[in-house]
Amino acid sequence: MTSNRQPRAEATRAHIVATAALAFAERGYEGVSLNDLVAASALSKGAFYFHFASKEDLALAAFRAKQEELVSRLLANELPESASEQVEALLRRRARLIREDPSFGCVTRLGSELNVRSAPGSAYVGFQELALSLIADIVRHGQARREFRADLDAEAAARVIFAAIVGIDVLSLLSSGGKDLEERSDELIELLLAGLQSRAETSNVPTQGKERDHGARRTTRVPR
Amino acid sequence: MTSNRQPRAEATRAHIVATAALAFAERGYEGVSLNDLVAASALSKGAFYFHFASKEDLALAAFRAKQEELVSRLLANELPESASEQVEALLRRRARLIREDPSFGCVTRLGSELNVRSAPGSAYVGFQELALSLIADIVRHGQARREFRADLDAEAAARVIFAAIVGIDVLSLLSSGGKDLEERSDELIELLLAGLQSRAETSNVPTQGKERDHGARRTTRVPR
Repeated sequence: MTSNRQPRAEATRAHIVATAALAFAERGYEGVSLNDLVAASALSKGAFYFHFASKEDLALAAFRAKQEELVSRLLANELPESASEQVEALLRRRARLIREDPSFGCVTRLGSELNVRSAPGSAYVGFQELALSLIADIVRHGQARREFRADLDAEAAARVIFAAIVGIDVLSLLSSGGKDLEERSDELIELLLAGLQSRAETSNVPTQGKERDHGARRTTRVPR
Repeated sequence: MTSNRQPRAEATRAHIVATAALAFAERGYEGVSLNDLVAASALSKGAFYFHFASKEDLALAAFRAKQEELVSRLLANELPESASEQVEALLRRRARLIREDPSFGCVTRLGSELNVRSAPGSAYVGFQELALSLIADIVRHGQARREFRADLDAEAAARVIFAAIVGIDVLSLLSSGGKDLEERSDELIELLLAGLQSRAETSNVPTQGKERDHGARRTTRVPR
């Protein structure tokens, strides 16, 4: 990542990360040993260990590389102006990319394992920030357009949406080996958009105004 | 569970499950060995192995016992008639019970590990049904009261809500060791209720009608 590193060393490191990403995506953290990863790289142990000394370090690097690639591919195509359509487009693209490119199992499968294996304060926890800030930006964009509810705390909403994505990733792997991720993403979009969107100020639903007041009070209690 | 089992054997089995549940809640699946669980039970190996031959079997039994206890304690107190208030009351009670009784870490912490470790088709996958049917029943109750959107598929909504709960459980453990579960539950309630509740039929929000039509089409595509 640093500019003064040798280009050849950079290329070797990227090669190790790419081969490890595919192995982790296919067999998970528990399913591969450091020796498997050395073998997958086809490098000598000396060359390999110069870059990565532990399975955990390499797992973090592989997750991060594929997470950044997924986000960059998500944002590569132009997004619609409507925030609702952005939510829909991004969640659908995400599920499609994960289906089409098995190495993104590094985000869903390895990510699910790292969610459970990592400790509070670990470097992995900080990796969430990339997804959280992307989601919060879309919520704020929707609020600026008056498409989304003004009373929502964008960071709090982003935490919930990110949690729902983490949940559908792991439950999709558990129930179908990941095959139903697109269907689960559609189900999430369906419930989520209604939760985000502004509603008419006048309403004939009795509990509605009351619940919104509850919600507004709760939002202000979320610490920064 | 069967009525013709000896009462003493039943009591011994329940004792093993209860001591294992606490160990799994405190140290997780990876953190305890079968020997640790034998030691925690204070039984002879022979008595222990008569009931459980593997850590996995005992983990499933411990998860199931604590999941059933959590649901039964959630439903022990009278629920409000309003479906929105039921959602709010149940999610808050759940977070409070988990904070107050460390053995419920067996549902959140061990459950998060089993979500990742279990294979499609395993007995563990079927355990979700208890939570899914409870949630779907509340959604249908809200629809019958015209509190919740008639266009929602109750089972699909239950899958999303369950996924969000699974997600906040694991992210709460990851980011704070479970300390922020009540706050995250409040954030979920805030977004979820707006996603479930009916809205006024007339609306001044331009994208709203369009998105609802999309949603209705998607919902009918969900296979049974």
